[in-house]
Amino acid sequence: MTLETVSTAKSFGGTQGVYRHASRETGTDMNFAVYLPPQAAGGAKLPVLYYLSGLTCSHANVMEKGGYQRVCAEQGLVFVAPDTSPRGPDVPDDPAYDFGQGAGFYVDATEEPYAKNYRMFSYVTAELPALLEEHFPVDSDRQSIMGHSMGGHGALTVALRQPGRYRSVSAFAPIVAPSRVPWGQKALGRYLGSDQARWRAADAVALIEDGARVPEILVDQGTSDSFLESELKPELLEAACRDAGIALTLRMQEGYDHSYFFISTFIEDHLRWHWQRLQS
Amino acid sequence: MTLETVSTAKSFGGTQGVYRHASRETGTDMNFAVYLPPQAAGGAKLPVLYYLSGLTCSHANVMEKGGYQRVCAEQGLVFVAPDTSPRGPDVPDDPAYDFGQGAGFYVDATEEPYAKNYRMFSYVTAELPALLEEHFPVDSDRQSIMGHSMGGHGALTVALRQPGRYRSVSAFAPIVAPSRVPWGQKALGRYLGSDQARWRAADAVALIEDGARVPEILVDQGTSDSFLESELKPELLEAACRDAGIALTLRMQEGYDHSYFFISTFIEDHLRWHWQRLQS
Repeated sequence: MTLETVSTAKSFGGTQGVYRHASRETGTDMNFAVYLPPQAAGGAKLPVLYYLSGLTCSHANVMEKGGYQRVCAEQGLVFVAPDTSPRGPDVPDDPAYDFGQGAGFYVDATEEPYAKNYRMFSYVTAELPALLEEHFPVDSDRQSIMGHSMGGHGALTVALRQPGRYRSVSAFAPIVAPSRVPWGQKALGRYLGSDQARWRAADAVALIEDGARVPEILVDQGTSDSFLESELKPELLEAACRDAGIALTLRMQEGYDHSYFFISTFIEDHLRWHWQRLQS
Repeated sequence: MTLETVSTAKSFGGTQGVYRHASRETGTDMNFAVYLPPQAAGGAKLPVLYYLSGLTCSHANVMEKGGYQRVCAEQGLVFVAPDTSPRGPDVPDDPAYDFGQGAGFYVDATEEPYAKNYRMFSYVTAELPALLEEHFPVDSDRQSIMGHSMGGHGALTVALRQPGRYRSVSAFAPIVAPSRVPWGQKALGRYLGSDQARWRAADAVALIEDGARVPEILVDQGTSDSFLESELKPELLEAACRDAGIALTLRMQEGYDHSYFFISTFIEDHLRWHWQRLQS
């Protein structure tokens, strides 16, 4: 698979790059960001952390506002941020911010007209990791995953559906039960169809109820997040993890909102938490 | 003077705010960003660092991409980022990115049609500090200033023209001699007129040649900055400081460009350097 370099910039001694490739899964060109820490120059394969972004975001939001580069440079951690959907004039879209381009929900759509392009589950779990392995010094035995909001939903479902693949999973303000909230009901209904039984594999709480397991989960959630009560509902994840014996660390962060000011405040904690688990 | 709160978000325990006011100097509404560290809750007046931004930027670029909040929160430092020019449909503009709105060059224009609105020197040195003193817990006896590119020019000239007012001055990739480079010649010519003698008070190197002094200056400059040779020319500042006995620390940073990936890498060094000088 060929890869085009869109841009690179030196950052904390490493390289923040943006790359583009023709995706087989989405049938479009896809952009993604990779931070290579200075340790990459040594030639060894490094642990890799995937970050799945939220509604309306591209690879660029966390790359510019997340503030992860400093800690990744210290640790020797590769940080990968894919886009949130296929994009382009030929990709079915919707004028709403919470569906269509910028809102792929990390599922493989089965419904028309979305099924051809909206294959973000396969993209982030298969095509992109294979591409990274081919072009970057990443150690596929040491992968972790995290995400924000819709991307928190993505990280949780991707990890729950592939037991043992990721060393650790964490999220900022995740959608934990899309089947039960407006953002998720709209997206899953249109991408996966009206049969709600088919939504369960795209719903972290339902996956846990149906027996999927990860050993532990770290979640940070701001108490002043305007989506907390309507869309995020961390109490549903808390209950499901309690029933399932999953060690959930849910930190309610007083006064924080849904923005990158919240994420950048606590991302160092997440990076250090993942790093511990990537060493073992 | 009244102040409107545009937005606030909790960040590293403090508050990242954006505010708007009707400016007497520019005749427009002006936005600016203030980061109040958690120590502001204690009621004491805190040291303040002004950050002047570069061409095309507003208050938002450094606020979102600079990554200063973590260190300011640790130190107890207020960080203020003004806009780079007056803005609005009634403000004379230019289609070019390097003149007009977004490109005020921190001068008080004397030429028409700019003289009425383009008063950024008076705005950042008088009106904005007075407004901050009225509405925020800032200690005007402990101020420092820094900037990037056009804002590095701003920080250097503002400090050189007001000896003793700022405890310290630093810059990322500053324009040091606008009279001798295309960006500056275009802007100073149109804001200040064709008599180049009147440009000298808006040119850091010329100010130093004419006797203006600060005790020391810190400058970081990326060696892969695409504007280095044509617009920035740090060697001119180096020569002027050498002749004047100003202690310039010029750090040529190998491989870094002109972007916020460069700034965010080294902003901690600048914050700690200023903080030392704000304590004395």
